Amino acid sequence: MTDELVTHHKKQLNITIERPVLNRMLDLLDELKVTGYTVIPSLGGSGSEGTWRRSGMVTDAGQMVVVVCVLDESRVAEVLGPVFRLVEKQIGIVTVSDVQVVRPERF
Amino acid sequence: MTDELVTHHKKQLNITIERPVLNRMLDLLDELKVTGYTVIPSLGGSGSEGTWRRSGMVTDAGQMVVVVCVLDESRVAEVLGPVFRLVEKQIGIVTVSDVQVVRPERF
Amino acid sequence: MTDELVTHHKKQLNITIERPVLNRMLDLLDELKVTGYTVIPSLGGSGSEGTWRRSGMVTDAGQMVVVVCVLDESRVAEVLGPVFRLVEKQIGIVTVSDVQVVRPERF
Repeated sequence: MTDELVTHHKKQLNITIERPVLNRMLDLLDELKVTGYTVIPSLGGSGSEGTWRRSGMVTDAGQMVVVVCVLDESRVAEVLGPVFRLVEKQIGIVTVSDVQVVRPERF
Repeated sequence: MTDELVTHHKKQLNITIERPVLNRMLDLLDELKVTGYTVIPSLGGSGSEGTWRRSGMVTDAGQMVVVVCVLDESRVAEVLGPVFRLVEKQIGIVTVSDVQVVRPERF
Repeated sequence: MTDELVTHHKKQLNITIERPVLNRMLDLLDELKVTGYTVIPSLGGSGSEGTWRRSGMVTDAGQMVVVVCVLDESRVAEVLGPVFRLVEKQIGIVTVSDVQVVRPERF
């Protein structure tokens, strides 16, 4: 038995958005058949719209959330377009990065 | 004095697992001598097993957690094998990505 | 209308630090004109200084936090220096990774 697992190249999208927009984003991801995502809370932050850390930090957690999803590279363009169009009307940022996964059929 | 720090290439493992499996995962990482990790909470998510966001979101945070660890590239194979074997019996996902760090001797 | 958005290469810094150092770090990022960051909580972790998961997990969340910021590559050296000098006196870790973003003018 070997521990040398084969890994497969995928793309990770990190979508940082305001909490009130989250359900709309998750509905959009469901429509786009993006089935693997995790929602991470935040304690505060700062963006081009100003700092929101002073008021929100610790006591009012979750003003912004980060939706992390892993996609096949072939799906990035079709997903990134609608996701970005929802984010650009709001405060938020979308990043795309490279990851390796073990089970390619899941994404 | 220069701010040009030398950075070193490492691998980051993100292990997304159910909260009840976390202690077993951390024990495994301890056994494998993976000494640098951080555990991030989540608010909800969706995977090949279905969506868990509706029930868990916000009020019951922490159903899934993300264990983030940074490893020397030479250790990825020996760590990824046992970690994946624990995750594959459960709901979860493991991703591997490239990062740079300043202090290489820590990992 | 096409969904093929142009993405631009940036660098992501993940700064994992103790909660009491967070305000000093955010002040430093403000001074350095790093305007886009998000602060992520943690539930626990382990580092070269030992494990802090047993005491801190779940009930005393937020002992460590992760400041995630996205920067233009041209700014990494000038930002990483001061950030690392603050972190190295404390428990903490800084990683640098590659990301793509849609709106380059924001960083």
